[in-house]
Amino acid sequence: MTYRFSVTYRIRATDLAEAKDRALGTALEQTVEIPRDVVPKGYVEDEILGRVEDLQPLSNGIWQAVIGYSPDSAGDELTQFLNVVFGNSSIQQGIRVTAIDPGATMAARLPGPRFGIAGIRRLCGRATGGLIAPVLKPMGLGPADLAQLAAGCVRGGADIIKEDHGLAGQPSAPFKARVAAIARSVADANAETGAKALYFPNLSGTADEIEANLHFAKAAGADGILIIPGLFGFGLVQHVARDAALNLPVMTHPAFLGPYVLAPDFGLDHGVLFGTIQRLAGADISVFPNVGGRFGFTHDECAQIARACRTPDGPGRPLMPSPGGGMNVNRAVDMKAMYGDDVVFLLGGSLLKDPARIDEAVRQMRHALDATAPE
Amino acid sequence: MTYRFSVTYRIRATDLAEAKDRALGTALEQTVEIPRDVVPKGYVEDEILGRVEDLQPLSNGIWQAVIGYSPDSAGDELTQFLNVVFGNSSIQQGIRVTAIDPGATMAARLPGPRFGIAGIRRLCGRATGGLIAPVLKPMGLGPADLAQLAAGCVRGGADIIKEDHGLAGQPSAPFKARVAAIARSVADANAETGAKALYFPNLSGTADEIEANLHFAKAAGADGILIIPGLFGFGLVQHVARDAALNLPVMTHPAFLGPYVLAPDFGLDHGVLFGTIQRLAGADISVFPNVGGRFGFTHDECAQIARACRTPDGPGRPLMPSPGGGMNVNRAVDMKAMYGDDVVFLLGGSLLKDPARIDEAVRQMRHALDATAPE
Repeated sequence: MTYRFSVTYRIRATDLAEAKDRALGTALEQTVEIPRDVVPKGYVEDEILGRVEDLQPLSNGIWQAVIGYSPDSAGDELTQFLNVVFGNSSIQQGIRVTAIDPGATMAARLPGPRFGIAGIRRLCGRATGGLIAPVLKPMGLGPADLAQLAAGCVRGGADIIKEDHGLAGQPSAPFKARVAAIARSVADANAETGAKALYFPNLSGTADEIEANLHFAKAAGADGILIIPGLFGFGLVQHVARDAALNLPVMTHPAFLGPYVLAPDFGLDHGVLFGTIQRLAGADISVFPNVGGRFGFTHDECAQIARACRTPDGPGRPLMPSPGGGMNVNRAVDMKAMYGDDVVFLLGGSLLKDPARIDEAVRQMRHALDATAPE
Repeated sequence: MTYRFSVTYRIRATDLAEAKDRALGTALEQTVEIPRDVVPKGYVEDEILGRVEDLQPLSNGIWQAVIGYSPDSAGDELTQFLNVVFGNSSIQQGIRVTAIDPGATMAARLPGPRFGIAGIRRLCGRATGGLIAPVLKPMGLGPADLAQLAAGCVRGGADIIKEDHGLAGQPSAPFKARVAAIARSVADANAETGAKALYFPNLSGTADEIEANLHFAKAAGADGILIIPGLFGFGLVQHVARDAALNLPVMTHPAFLGPYVLAPDFGLDHGVLFGTIQRLAGADISVFPNVGGRFGFTHDECAQIARACRTPDGPGRPLMPSPGGGMNVNRAVDMKAMYGDDVVFLLGGSLLKDPARIDEAVRQMRHALDATAPE
């Protein structure tokens, strides 16, 4: 028995007739991509063709359509699943994905995060409270300087040492030299302090280097991997999340993904892109720009992301939302109030005012979070 | 001697002071991603930090900023180059990439299309006139049915037989069985008719299958590869384009890329995404939705794409623009007038009214294009 998956779209249309046309057109566009009157009878029409399962008015000129698709149209590949969800329709105005329900069959094929919230807490040894993830930067520093910053972060009580998403294969700090130096530094500082801080390098490289870089990072002692799906594709997230031998948690970064969410009239809802799709791909931590920083996400959009990341209803295990982008210790109380405890707080440039005292800056953030803990 | 690359952004700002702030903020955001006052002196400040090279008002509330970046910030990786061009800034409202000038240093690292317009013409043996590329679909057909359609297309005079971007690893036509059957069918029909039609399968698979699928396609006789960079990343395009042993031309498909261009206020200009970036990645043919079909691109947007694909000024060789999406023989005269000869016309669902006579439908398109040829 296979179960179909369904996608909820918000569609702009002047009346019911146009809304029906657009919904039926989407069901065609996302599957057979040919006019309705030439769809072959039998398997293609009965199984492959998308079906409009529901169509409701939401407000003036705005409709909600639920379209059901066959797992046979997606196969086992996350990339093709996303292609059915929104491949060609992403190029149209007035249609936005607001929910994805993978159904039992696709949920089994896309089982989600290997670690999730509980797994990440176990790895870094922080059973309760928000996690702190300082970011190693700026690009242009050499491996030794970055390694020294990393050690300071461990001593200050960081849970995850995350590399900046802009650290790639630059000549100032090539991937392997950098990862080896930082992993050693984090391990030494962990040994010295008894901490269990995790190190997440930023995966980079040309397509033929990626696999070797992944395994190099693992062998060097990295505890997880940062991936930019907007540049490398969600298939790479799925690949790492599925690799039992590698067994590394994945943190995803939103670079180059902005246009998917920025307009209410097309693209993907914030919770779909930074929550549901991340879970389907198998990410354990999803980074997104927090309200009030350098980016324009609203409180509601961020709350939607956190909800999609953490709902126990799936798909797969709950993952850690990770707000960042201009965060600092002065916002700790607000952020704690907004996100609660199952969250990874990114700390970037605000830590670098005095690089030699980065440990102190991380420690202040820890104190600020703990001071606001419920009694 | 290294030459910096530059990116032109259209920025929303109420006055010159805000425009300056945004431009300087972008130069920081896209490189060091830390506040200006904590940027380390020396190499990071002098070389890595982006530089605002020009700032001009365009119209009321709209400014144009040119920001120069160091090749050291990008290294050799296309993905990191794109990350510097627009990674984090893609998440902001009111900033859009309108041009990319790679400069001599990055142009040498990203040499562009292996085949380009001249190479594609040589491969398919059509020295002049527009190329015709019928699309094999719908998903749900088996390899034998798709192979039969392909043979009909060859007999009708198709230049490129392109698979629908929705044909992946579905159970109805798994990648290897499908590619083997269609490649054989196209080869047989070419031998029978003396044609040189090219077959471009749609690359799919999980991340660990991609490389094997590529080499399987080559060995089976595929003449090129269709890639969806919106799902698989532009790094995969670069990888295939660079592989001298594979030596296959690349056609790219716009699925899942729509949100980058749909709003004038953020994202990337149409010509940048479907022209300049495709060239930098090494694509030889760039598919995009034509004006007047099922998608909403305007005449000017499509003309901008064609211009960016074909300008002799680079980067790299000119590539073939490939308009599609609801095209048919009745539009041949208009399309020829708009795009001229160096173009690949996609033909999809309109060919499938009578699958047994698809050869006749392709032949009609050829006649329509040739009938409008300049005398």
